[in-house]
Amino acid sequence: MDLKTFIKDVPDYPKAGIVFKDITPLLADKAAFNFAINQFAEKFSGQNVDAVVGIDARGFLLAAPVAYKLGAGLAIARKSGKLPRQCLRQDYILEYASNSLEMHADAILPGQKILIIDDVLATGGTMEATGKLVQKMGGDIVGIGFLMELKFLQGREKLKNYNIYSLLSYSK
Amino acid sequence: MDLKTFIKDVPDYPKAGIVFKDITPLLADKAAFNFAINQFAEKFSGQNVDAVVGIDARGFLLAAPVAYKLGAGLAIARKSGKLPRQCLRQDYILEYASNSLEMHADAILPGQKILIIDDVLATGGTMEATGKLVQKMGGDIVGIGFLMELKFLQGREKLKNYNIYSLLSYSK
Repeated sequence: MDLKTFIKDVPDYPKAGIVFKDITPLLADKAAFNFAINQFAEKFSGQNVDAVVGIDARGFLLAAPVAYKLGAGLAIARKSGKLPRQCLRQDYILEYASNSLEMHADAILPGQKILIIDDVLATGGTMEATGKLVQKMGGDIVGIGFLMELKFLQGREKLKNYNIYSLLSYSK
Repeated sequence: MDLKTFIKDVPDYPKAGIVFKDITPLLADKAAFNFAINQFAEKFSGQNVDAVVGIDARGFLLAAPVAYKLGAGLAIARKSGKLPRQCLRQDYILEYASNSLEMHADAILPGQKILIIDDVLATGGTMEATGKLVQKMGGDIVGIGFLMELKFLQGREKLKNYNIYSLLSYSK
């Protein structure tokens, strides 16, 4: 199945000159959605994943069903101030600003095998920050997965130590 | 399985006097997470659901795996300004303020059988607003589901016309 046919280009979003790749038509198509989740699950089914980490908020849409399919638990990394209990926090740099992600300090147990899922690999900053949080808790990151990778932004450079799997790849 | 044992009370969050019910320990436990998703799926498996709507952001964590399990598509209702294409918008009243939700104008096709999932039924305003958006697009809402219902807030009163299913119920 060619999942790219379900991704809709949105010109000049969120600002002029940027072409945003909208994944909602893929999610909305039952066959495409099912296929995408199964692809992740097949790729990582041999890794004995204990928990899948989803990144706020679009990452949740993929991480949660992958966790379900793998029979794993689900943990979440959220933007600051969204989680109710004691958190670990990791700042990261965006193009023109900084941001931060938090996870509950007990979200991952030492030695757990962890898969982290997000929708898009762009510059890699968000995934890098999430990886640091998981490692602070002693998680063993067995893989990271993206629905799509924007190769021209070279985010993979930040994530060299990880087993990366992207369902779709865009070279421009 | 008694799912309530996986819900953690957080006193005085987000403000003094409120006891927040944290669902993240339930998500993190592979057996509890799997059981919860299966409960939703079994409840609605006879309804020929075409698409499950998840509400931003914790609702995504449940709606996405339920959609996957049912073999349905996944649509999303988001806080204002988060979706890239033409949207329908619905304002709703919170305790001391108003808020709004948006869905892409093509997220639901007329006649589609729709299940809406969120984490918590509190006053019911968020679900009511989402229901209105789905109905504007001609969706046929066959059910609405919550992981937990806070009965003392009487949100059910706003949702009388719906087939409501809550996995957990709290009377105080």
